[in-house]
Amino acid sequence: MKNFKLDILKVRAFVFDIDGVISGNELILREEGYEPLRTLNTKDGYALHYAIKQGFLMAIITGCKSDSIEKHFKKLGASVYMQSDIKKVFLEDFMKKNNLSAEDVLYMGDDIPDYEAMQMVRVPTCPKDASVEIKEISSYISPFNGGKGCVRDIIEQVMRAQNKWMRDDAFSW
Amino acid sequence: MKNFKLDILKVRAFVFDIDGVISGNELILREEGYEPLRTLNTKDGYALHYAIKQGFLMAIITGCKSDSIEKHFKKLGASVYMQSDIKKVFLEDFMKKNNLSAEDVLYMGDDIPDYEAMQMVRVPTCPKDASVEIKEISSYISPFNGGKGCVRDIIEQVMRAQNKWMRDDAFSW
Amino acid sequence: MKNFKLDILKVRAFVFDIDGVISGNELILREEGYEPLRTLNTKDGYALHYAIKQGFLMAIITGCKSDSIEKHFKKLGASVYMQSDIKKVFLEDFMKKNNLSAEDVLYMGDDIPDYEAMQMVRVPTCPKDASVEIKEISSYISPFNGGKGCVRDIIEQVMRAQNKWMRDDAFSW
Amino acid sequence: MKNFKLDILKVRAFVFDIDGVISGNELILREEGYEPLRTLNTKDGYALHYAIKQGFLMAIITGCKSDSIEKHFKKLGASVYMQSDIKKVFLEDFMKKNNLSAEDVLYMGDDIPDYEAMQMVRVPTCPKDASVEIKEISSYISPFNGGKGCVRDIIEQVMRAQNKWMRDDAFSW
Repeated sequence: MKNFKLDILKVRAFVFDIDGVISGNELILREEGYEPLRTLNTKDGYALHYAIKQGFLMAIITGCKSDSIEKHFKKLGASVYMQSDIKKVFLEDFMKKNNLSAEDVLYMGDDIPDYEAMQMVRVPTCPKDASVEIKEISSYISPFNGGKGCVRDIIEQVMRAQNKWMRDDAFSW
Repeated sequence: MKNFKLDILKVRAFVFDIDGVISGNELILREEGYEPLRTLNTKDGYALHYAIKQGFLMAIITGCKSDSIEKHFKKLGASVYMQSDIKKVFLEDFMKKNNLSAEDVLYMGDDIPDYEAMQMVRVPTCPKDASVEIKEISSYISPFNGGKGCVRDIIEQVMRAQNKWMRDDAFSW
Repeated sequence: MKNFKLDILKVRAFVFDIDGVISGNELILREEGYEPLRTLNTKDGYALHYAIKQGFLMAIITGCKSDSIEKHFKKLGASVYMQSDIKKVFLEDFMKKNNLSAEDVLYMGDDIPDYEAMQMVRVPTCPKDASVEIKEISSYISPFNGGKGCVRDIIEQVMRAQNKWMRDDAFSW
Repeated sequence: MKNFKLDILKVRAFVFDIDGVISGNELILREEGYEPLRTLNTKDGYALHYAIKQGFLMAIITGCKSDSIEKHFKKLGASVYMQSDIKKVFLEDFMKKNNLSAEDVLYMGDDIPDYEAMQMVRVPTCPKDASVEIKEISSYISPFNGGKGCVRDIIEQVMRAQNKWMRDDAFSW
């Protein structure tokens, strides 16, 4: 049986959706041909950066196509899967390439396209404003909305549990 | 007499306003000559996409002029009426062309320019932050504000009632 | 003595500040040389448009410099005073040119630069998130924040009191 | 022992972080090569401007790189430290150059990269949505979030305590 408090002790990889998780739910539409504008939360940003610095693996799996998101997260050291129409296929790829089993992986998603992929991992989680279906299969529902700190919340919890949060190298970017 | 729970069983077409319904109430003004920037909610976006995939008809009737909105929704398969100064005229056009009677149509609007058009359909609905006049004539007031999930809410309710929500083809875009 | 309910019966001109009243409190900074991006609320927009259509005079008095704001409001039929370092001077100009006495004018401002100008008119009003000093001298504090419907609220109240709201010509833009 | 009400009587310099303090927590990502878009609160802006006008020293110490932020605050008269990977180093520089002791300085930060710098000053403060670690070492936690008025709040409190708020020169920009 799943037990969130115990399961996060074993997590060594984070998987995040973009829209509604890392970014907020609202895209700013621009002219045709330009990708919509997305937001990035600075407190989430610090945690994403620090988790990778401490050795966690990370994947971004998203249905969207965004050059700025892709470059931003590749530079950070994450695997980036864009235009992922069927997310479980891309999750399988990420897990195989990195030799990860279900117990190693925490996934945070917010809507029905994340449903099948979330059932493949030991620690499925979601933001407060996830859809009903996603909440039903999540081990943990963050008190923060998508784009408003849910990513910081889950990374901080995992790293605190593993005694990896706020070490000596925490005070700089 | 209108009965929301029964009436939505017959709905086969959705009509939406843009500003204050699909988009939030706040436009971002740019330089003169450029259309203002509008937001699109990703959870609404999934529902709009999935409703059309399941065979629902859809129309966007808006007073605004926005190339990016127009192309986005035409690509999705919706009828798009821009710069609709008198909305009931454009609603009539949409209903005639698609052979729709009042019972077939759900309309979601938020302000006085939607007033007359909403009285032409069986299921007039609105977001939580609609104007007083619009709330008074609505069969259903969503608990979500314009641009913040009211569109997802109403589509999900109709499709659940008709047993069309989250079928086998729901897990990809 | 001032009496808001009675005083608004005589109002025939509206004066609005931009930042924190018509726009929200948050500007989006761009590159040096470009004016910051501002928001416009669509429900406020309808009311501003309809008030002018029904014969009300309108002035925008703002410390900011924004070509898009200026053109937008001039096109609507308002007097626009940009870069108004001392607002009372520009209010005097507007009142003289239009032969307005203090009783004719409602002013909505939100911060200390509006203080002196607001004391020149019969009906000083403000949004919910105005500064303490401005709240203290206001006849009416809207339950809506700047950029979030305070302008719609005050225009609607004045026009309803004068029996000018939602007439036959209300249903189109 | 620290006493916020007494300590602010001696403050003569303000130090602010950008992301999560002066700006909100959400950056708008643009194309690769462009700095993300940040917001500026107009009520904060008035207070920042007025504090410098009344003779307070001001420094901006931020990990970000933003030409628009840099030019905006240099023009206002503040010292600006961009890309400050280790903030305490830059704070030391600012204090030495201006002959400031710990008692002279109020710092407002919101996250772990501010932690060490905040411990160097007499009056460490933070917005409502600061991280847990920062709240624990703050003399004062503003009821306002980052980018939503926390800067105005703290400047206003200091200036009121020192009887420098809303003097004769307060009514213009």
